[in-house]
Amino acid sequence: MNGAESLVKTFLHCGVDTVFANPGTSEMHFVAALDDHPEMNCVLCLFEGGTTGAADGYYRMKRDVAGTLLHLAPGFGNAFANLHNARKSGSGIVNVVGDHATHHLRYESPLKGDIVGISQAVSHWTRVSGDATSVAGDGAAAIQAARSQNGQIATLILPADTAWETANGPVTTILPTQRCHRPSIDDIEAAAARLTTQQAALMIGGAALFGPLRELVGKIAAETGCRVLADTLIPRISKGAGATKLDQLVYPITPKIAQLDGTSSITLLGTDRPVAFFAYPGKPSVPEPSDCPVIDLCSPTDDIDWTLQSLADAVGVSSTTSANTYPLELPSIPSGQLTLAKVGQTLAALIPENAILCNESVTSGFHVIPPTATARPHDLLAGTGGAIGLCLPCATGAAIACPDRKVIALTGDGSAMYTLQSLWTMARENLDITVIVFANRGYQILRDELTNVGVESFGRNAQAMFDVENPTLDWLSLAKGHGVPGTRVEEIEGFAKALSAGISSDGPSLIEVVCPSLA
Amino acid sequence: MNGAESLVKTFLHCGVDTVFANPGTSEMHFVAALDDHPEMNCVLCLFEGGTTGAADGYYRMKRDVAGTLLHLAPGFGNAFANLHNARKSGSGIVNVVGDHATHHLRYESPLKGDIVGISQAVSHWTRVSGDATSVAGDGAAAIQAARSQNGQIATLILPADTAWETANGPVTTILPTQRCHRPSIDDIEAAAARLTTQQAALMIGGAALFGPLRELVGKIAAETGCRVLADTLIPRISKGAGATKLDQLVYPITPKIAQLDGTSSITLLGTDRPVAFFAYPGKPSVPEPSDCPVIDLCSPTDDIDWTLQSLADAVGVSSTTSANTYPLELPSIPSGQLTLAKVGQTLAALIPENAILCNESVTSGFHVIPPTATARPHDLLAGTGGAIGLCLPCATGAAIACPDRKVIALTGDGSAMYTLQSLWTMARENLDITVIVFANRGYQILRDELTNVGVESFGRNAQAMFDVENPTLDWLSLAKGHGVPGTRVEEIEGFAKALSAGISSDGPSLIEVVCPSLA
Repeated sequence: MNGAESLVKTFLHCGVDTVFANPGTSEMHFVAALDDHPEMNCVLCLFEGGTTGAADGYYRMKRDVAGTLLHLAPGFGNAFANLHNARKSGSGIVNVVGDHATHHLRYESPLKGDIVGISQAVSHWTRVSGDATSVAGDGAAAIQAARSQNGQIATLILPADTAWETANGPVTTILPTQRCHRPSIDDIEAAAARLTTQQAALMIGGAALFGPLRELVGKIAAETGCRVLADTLIPRISKGAGATKLDQLVYPITPKIAQLDGTSSITLLGTDRPVAFFAYPGKPSVPEPSDCPVIDLCSPTDDIDWTLQSLADAVGVSSTTSANTYPLELPSIPSGQLTLAKVGQTLAALIPENAILCNESVTSGFHVIPPTATARPHDLLAGTGGAIGLCLPCATGAAIACPDRKVIALTGDGSAMYTLQSLWTMARENLDITVIVFANRGYQILRDELTNVGVESFGRNAQAMFDVENPTLDWLSLAKGHGVPGTRVEEIEGFAKALSAGISSDGPSLIEVVCPSLA
Repeated sequence: MNGAESLVKTFLHCGVDTVFANPGTSEMHFVAALDDHPEMNCVLCLFEGGTTGAADGYYRMKRDVAGTLLHLAPGFGNAFANLHNARKSGSGIVNVVGDHATHHLRYESPLKGDIVGISQAVSHWTRVSGDATSVAGDGAAAIQAARSQNGQIATLILPADTAWETANGPVTTILPTQRCHRPSIDDIEAAAARLTTQQAALMIGGAALFGPLRELVGKIAAETGCRVLADTLIPRISKGAGATKLDQLVYPITPKIAQLDGTSSITLLGTDRPVAFFAYPGKPSVPEPSDCPVIDLCSPTDDIDWTLQSLADAVGVSSTTSANTYPLELPSIPSGQLTLAKVGQTLAALIPENAILCNESVTSGFHVIPPTATARPHDLLAGTGGAIGLCLPCATGAAIACPDRKVIALTGDGSAMYTLQSLWTMARENLDITVIVFANRGYQILRDELTNVGVESFGRNAQAMFDVENPTLDWLSLAKGHGVPGTRVEEIEGFAKALSAGISSDGPSLIEVVCPSLA
């Protein structure tokens, strides 16, 4: 058995059975080892941002790690932006990056690069295997690291000779993850008391945003009367009927400050403190009132489950406590001229139960998402690190993690262009994804942001950098080129029909919503 | 004047008037400043790999630096792979990367990341501007660094407040670049003597590969009888009739070793020593005979021009020395079934004088490029760092650097998918580029490389990772989606017709050559 075989067997023994891959020559022995293990699900992505975004989406839904397979430093570079997003999501990922054989690294070969340097700029854990007999143990340690602290980026660099030389055998037992830090009982009790005071807020993140823990948050709110907050960008959140009510912070800093006006305290549970997305001249970086304390009860890497249970006990949640939840209120499907609000209503009316929405529609989303609050129960995934180009890969990974659930991907045209190659993987794997591209034909958010910095009218150079026109992108052709059928809609009836068809289908499809300068 | 304005004016004063841009909110003041200077040519790329690949192609042809405009660490990540290629090409580039305002960096905002860390993994020079009054000086220093050592990667990180706060004014004089190292006269004379010995080789790189210096190399070879070698991957090389003869090293290690059999010495001038692209089990990393000395007369960062002139003087090159050059021998246009060799003959017959070929056709290129040796005089640009996805961006930059020259981009389908967004920039800027995509519907080189590591037959997982089929990519639709007209050809007459049409046109076009399993 060589090092590569010992690693593949270690992955399988440790329960990692999905790899999003974009391999090259330095990973050939790993490919050969994968080939001997058909129980490993290898998903080819035609660009590395597709691998890491998919592993992120996979983790968000599966709550466990997938691997990626990357080719030296440039491959890691292409993977970087979506690793940044995954890091901000708290997603666990194991990257396997091939390098030149150890004895070859003294030469200035074309692909020689600083893999450790680029990895350390985004990974929580980076290790270079020293020899073939270390590879299995290093792989198990990488999986352990990726599963620790509620999910981390772990990168294992494999010089080619460590893959092809003789190894001892795989690691066959899962290494235990380090126990997450827990707050003290005093801190829990202080938080319980604080949440009962007027205008107190509990701001939640991570695993508290969905599923049973989200229900528990709702019960804590019911017992204490506190307001529940979530950040602007969240990795995964329960939405629609039955989800307990919360207020999500908005993107722009001025209304974000207004949202927190009068708040007496913010208790953080599984999230970082609220902060402006960007700094602007003369505007503050943090949105809370100056006299509002922000208390870090449980950081994103702490034990969120234990903390929530303890807090629920401390505030007296019982089997009879009832949370305040969103009702099921499906809007009727609108007609007439297409607006983004009507698109949102149509979407809210048609989202099937248990769907996964993956949203990176940026400015369009400001209008489209609000009506979905009372749709059928679903999960919403969104960009977390602000690096656009997450949506299509993340939807891909979510669909692979949950083959029985419908995925609806909402993306701006600007965002989708960064990683459009994921459309091909959707077609190759016949994933149950309906992609909706909002074709506003530009970087609408940048038009807005230039205004925010005080520029009122644009000249040639700004226009050239904000407009994606001359030529207009043709998303039907782009989809067709990748093997995905598409529909272009310019009125709301067409959108409703295309969305219904997409939802009825079992495979991928794309809807281009033509909406230049719409609101 | 704010920091951003001082930087744009500094760029213009220093002769940097082209910026390949993919900006975001943290660069808005820079965009506003660019907008006030219409004499700055801002070229929008819809993915950051397009910006750096274009800046690389621009430098190779213009022999001067362009800027890129990137958005924080994830933007730099997307730019990384083509910066790796540019670094290996010895191309000078000035990256301007926006960061959060200095006072905002203490918070864990979504886009906060380790820009310095990722930059240092590939840049020769990285600096963070400390305040607005430093920006102009830092910008001039970045340009100086990018122009030094025959071309370097310089990255200037601008926290948003350094762009928006008040600055003093631009730098109005160009900072002198450091003089490159020159070998000693003794080393020159030793090299001159060595080159007259039997089976001596002069291996050239950088600026020695094209234009007047290449002619000088030919004359040195004529006077000494030495063999002239070039590496497998070269940034730019004079090709076709009139170019002085040389032997380019091949990609696979076994025939590369055969090419150097019997070589008595290798004198390096503007290049690193030859090395295997990858290491393979049981095969050597270096191709020269064990008793063949490799002498580094002039490294890629040394003074190549001065060294060549001195060497020419030392070997007695005079006005009557005549170099051995390739003749003009245009093949007739073949007919019948399409083969890659016939595609090469057709290309060789039709390349217009002074064209720029940008080649990343990888395995197809092994068959297509050889017939072009006696075509009309042209320049050939190729991948240098082994990170595929260079071709379309590089062709874009070359076309912007040389608007009066026809650019022909040759790419594999696998390679083109990494940065296909550059097709849109070609359309937006109406660039005179004919793109030829060799659709072998897979990563042919990986199929070969798996065989090289000893695997004879492929199973499901290897096949899934080497074949880009199910579905087949439809390059006509991909081109159309980006606004570029396309033609699909499956026989040689159709290729000749489409290439003639592309060459006759002034704007971009794409030809998909369907060639699964062809040679």
